[in-house]
Amino acid sequence: MKEDSLINLFSKIFSYPKSKDLIAGVGDDCAVIDLGAREYALVTVDEVQEGTHFLMKFTSPSLLASKLVRMNVSDIYSMGDARPLFCFVAGGLPRDIHPSWVKKFSVALKKESSFFGMKVAGGNLCRSDKVHFSMTVIGLASKGRIVYRKGTRVGDIIASVGFLGDAKAGVEILLSGKAKNRIEKKLVSRFWRPYIRHKDSRIIASYASAMLDNSDGLYKSLSIIAKENKVGVDIKLDKKIASPELISWCEAKKKNWREYVCSGGEDYGLIFSMNEKDFQLLKKKIPDSIAIGKVVSSRGIRIEGYEKKIETFEHF
Amino acid sequence: MKEDSLINLFSKIFSYPKSKDLIAGVGDDCAVIDLGAREYALVTVDEVQEGTHFLMKFTSPSLLASKLVRMNVSDIYSMGDARPLFCFVAGGLPRDIHPSWVKKFSVALKKESSFFGMKVAGGNLCRSDKVHFSMTVIGLASKGRIVYRKGTRVGDIIASVGFLGDAKAGVEILLSGKAKNRIEKKLVSRFWRPYIRHKDSRIIASYASAMLDNSDGLYKSLSIIAKENKVGVDIKLDKKIASPELISWCEAKKKNWREYVCSGGEDYGLIFSMNEKDFQLLKKKIPDSIAIGKVVSSRGIRIEGYEKKIETFEHF
Repeated sequence: MKEDSLINLFSKIFSYPKSKDLIAGVGDDCAVIDLGAREYALVTVDEVQEGTHFLMKFTSPSLLASKLVRMNVSDIYSMGDARPLFCFVAGGLPRDIHPSWVKKFSVALKKESSFFGMKVAGGNLCRSDKVHFSMTVIGLASKGRIVYRKGTRVGDIIASVGFLGDAKAGVEILLSGKAKNRIEKKLVSRFWRPYIRHKDSRIIASYASAMLDNSDGLYKSLSIIAKENKVGVDIKLDKKIASPELISWCEAKKKNWREYVCSGGEDYGLIFSMNEKDFQLLKKKIPDSIAIGKVVSSRGIRIEGYEKKIETFEHF
Repeated sequence: MKEDSLINLFSKIFSYPKSKDLIAGVGDDCAVIDLGAREYALVTVDEVQEGTHFLMKFTSPSLLASKLVRMNVSDIYSMGDARPLFCFVAGGLPRDIHPSWVKKFSVALKKESSFFGMKVAGGNLCRSDKVHFSMTVIGLASKGRIVYRKGTRVGDIIASVGFLGDAKAGVEILLSGKAKNRIEKKLVSRFWRPYIRHKDSRIIASYASAMLDNSDGLYKSLSIIAKENKVGVDIKLDKKIASPELISWCEAKKKNWREYVCSGGEDYGLIFSMNEKDFQLLKKKIPDSIAIGKVVSSRGIRIEGYEKKIETFEHF
């Protein structure tokens, strides 16, 4: 089963009649729920699975903890003026795992969570053949300042913060053996410890009409915006959307950086839409925010200079 | 690594200085957090893993969904006057899983969650060799009516609601082949669809000094109460704590029902302590609540008529 058809199935089954307590359920980066407090609670869950997302021989407990935390808090920040508060971890570990691995993972998990203002408040551990960890994060968000995937208007700018494509290159470098130089090491480290725009999201929330994190790669993110808002997007990629390291690496390897930007995943930058005037204001506050295209009424994703069929990032 | 040493490790690493927002973290059935609402939020996470908790050949998607929901809401109810509201599921599925399996599981998950007043508000799916599902449940509880594992006093009665030992017998029947008669079928069904005392927990909360669910078997539950409260317990098991089915089955198989009651797990009854007078009041409201022993100052677990070293239930 393809990821898209699964998501469609779940959106259908797990849709509920409009209610006071479930503001947004299955279908956005986070669920938005009303527990009777001044702010809404945000909840997200994500998972890392050995063999699918990582190989034990290429990882360390602290890198894995970093990735797990960052991929999860990214979903919280992508909802706008929001902050993660507590996380809960369910792990499966083989019986022969070394106690020092578990200890190092736990210490790193606490440290990494603390960096984002979050406490590890519970968990569960079971035996499994392969390592996996799922994490649930609970955060809070100002009621009026949540940005959903829906809200984009025709004429809006599509913009992005955070380099795209690095994680995909990082994985390829990992799988090909070892990072050979400073550039390759940097790309690998962006896979494990993606840079989370945690200070930017609340600024963007003041202007954005829609937002999501870039966990699935640019093409998939654009498809989601287009589908959710029943619009199309015309994209013109600025080289600045790729890191200097990715550009150099692609040049050296004779690869097309646009492919990494479009079909990569797990970069965890933010993709958002807003009107042009607001984008000029945003640009003063976040100078590395980059306009990459425009929202149009004609459905479809068009990327200038990149006609190739895009292999999108599949989690499943 | 043994489960106990892991729990000790986690309790140590994930302990935080006393704070306004984290009322209880790692170490109880649920985390208790203050999100600024009239009630406290309760959060718990638990997991089912193929090969560890179940075998695909013995299960169906709807039974697995039942078990996943019930084992999780049980933790919420075990905190006293509490109710589950939302759940989030992270699943790992093999690539060749049949779409109808996924659909049936999802439909059953929704139905079973609804039975306990809960909405499925989010999730994540990834590819894995073996099936696993972790579930996080968020509930609410009246601030003054939460019952923790700590609170037992010397002189209290130890009591229980819900038959113990059925799930362990159910697993043995499953592993030996097929349930051969009505009694065996009932025991197997208690493994998959344990009876959750969701209406009793708020009544018990009015009287109990400490409470937990019986997910790890009676002996382990008693050990937790004894350790948390620095007390001992003298137990005299009433046959009524075992179901008529378990008693019959044990007689037929020449097995000791006390062993199933003490070392079984996954029955999800409630174990609690309260003073004798309160227990008499409780007994009028929940006639099948059973006093099984007394809290004493002399440390240790003593079970009359059962001297054998007890193999406790290990999740890991």
